[in-house]
Amino acid sequence: MPGPPPEMERMWNEEVAPRLRERVRGAVLVTRTLKTIGIGEGHLDEMLGELTRSQNPTIGVYARPDGVHVRIGAKAADEESARALIAPMEERVRAILGEYIWGADDETLELVVGRLLRERGLTLATMESCTGGLLADTITNVPGSSAYFRAGYVAYDPEVKVALGVQRGLIESHGVVSAEVAADMARAARAVASADIGVGITGVAGPDPLEGKPPGTVHIGLHDGETAQVQSMTFYQGRLATKRRAVTIALGMLWRHLRQNTVRQGE
Amino acid sequence: MPGPPPEMERMWNEEVAPRLRERVRGAVLVTRTLKTIGIGEGHLDEMLGELTRSQNPTIGVYARPDGVHVRIGAKAADEESARALIAPMEERVRAILGEYIWGADDETLELVVGRLLRERGLTLATMESCTGGLLADTITNVPGSSAYFRAGYVAYDPEVKVALGVQRGLIESHGVVSAEVAADMARAARAVASADIGVGITGVAGPDPLEGKPPGTVHIGLHDGETAQVQSMTFYQGRLATKRRAVTIALGMLWRHLRQNTVRQGE
Repeated sequence: MPGPPPEMERMWNEEVAPRLRERVRGAVLVTRTLKTIGIGEGHLDEMLGELTRSQNPTIGVYARPDGVHVRIGAKAADEESARALIAPMEERVRAILGEYIWGADDETLELVVGRLLRERGLTLATMESCTGGLLADTITNVPGSSAYFRAGYVAYDPEVKVALGVQRGLIESHGVVSAEVAADMARAARAVASADIGVGITGVAGPDPLEGKPPGTVHIGLHDGETAQVQSMTFYQGRLATKRRAVTIALGMLWRHLRQNTVRQGE
Repeated sequence: MPGPPPEMERMWNEEVAPRLRERVRGAVLVTRTLKTIGIGEGHLDEMLGELTRSQNPTIGVYARPDGVHVRIGAKAADEESARALIAPMEERVRAILGEYIWGADDETLELVVGRLLRERGLTLATMESCTGGLLADTITNVPGSSAYFRAGYVAYDPEVKVALGVQRGLIESHGVVSAEVAADMARAARAVASADIGVGITGVAGPDPLEGKPPGTVHIGLHDGETAQVQSMTFYQGRLATKRRAVTIALGMLWRHLRQNTVRQGE
């Protein structure tokens, strides 16, 4: 199908999907997609065990840029019957993978993270180096994100990082591409923008190495005013893929952090 | 063809295009695309006049997200003969549209702007509001952009703009979505990052109006330390399209500014 993704999506939903449904004689196919992050495709497959051998509904496991998706598909005479087949299977999948599932169907990580921030009345600030603004861009693709996104800093130059409050000593002793600097960028972003949560990303987008570190080396920090956490990755399939993967990990960290704290508050 | 754009592109170049060429019995089709900005499709068509009625080579005019493209296509027994048909036509098109043509074939605006910045030894800083970091993200998609891109500020909150040096009085008297604030964001970005050129973008990404201004209202400022210029647009086909269009206009302004100053220096 031609055209930009939003047009294609509309064509699929309004034109193609209904016709495909008609072709399955007298039957409808309904799908439900559960989206996970923080777990590999192989491990997830293993956890689902014999569920993946089910015939109707079927279960498919797919690696996607925003994590691994579990798609439950059911065929029945009508939509209602298909949904009735899906519901108990979704429950079983959720019982196994619950802590990894961040959303369903057409939800995006940035949408879910935004909703959690808004619900908790928290604000966010980012400081990015190798991702060059892609994190801020992704977060602000959500309508209404100005309610929780205060500021993003793309500190491409080390001196710009220092001017924004990152400790020069950490850069000198650990290098600008380090877990320590990622955590301090998160702390500084939060402080300079007076936000509740800060995220910092530093790494090597490529294609050339930096400070002797290979392209695809990325450290992602999160600071909530009390503690900092860092996730590190090494993944290189080109500059743009590195940026996208780092942003996904950052959003995944934010989701997990917000979700855990929500649970803690509710206890 | 399936897959993400880079894969698709490779498949097209290495698999599909050669086979299509073979199908045109004993002939090859060669194309050359000239990319323009700052001129509408209709006006461009008019300027090309009877050239567009040429049979071999043919001329096609296409509106694209990064401006209007002019594609010259020639059929001949071999590639060399096809290129020989294209060359004089390209010269004629360039004679008519020269001042609007920023690149050719697979060049991108951010690549061309980056090359000009690097050639001139100039540095760049950005301050974005409604585009939320997409300008910085686009600029830093170019490998080696750290040589000229110093810093980007995503100042989503008016107070963050003020903290970065934007004059509060301008926001109060003209509103945050105004040509005056866009120009001052460009000035402030440049000053706070000690860069040679600053770009500022403020507007309404949508879907809701802001300060009574409709979604798609965007002001883009550029400051080179001496003077400021502003371009304004009103274009709404959704939040993401507004962000993309604003970034294209900003890159187009940068290209024109760098190009004019280069010409001036060479005189």
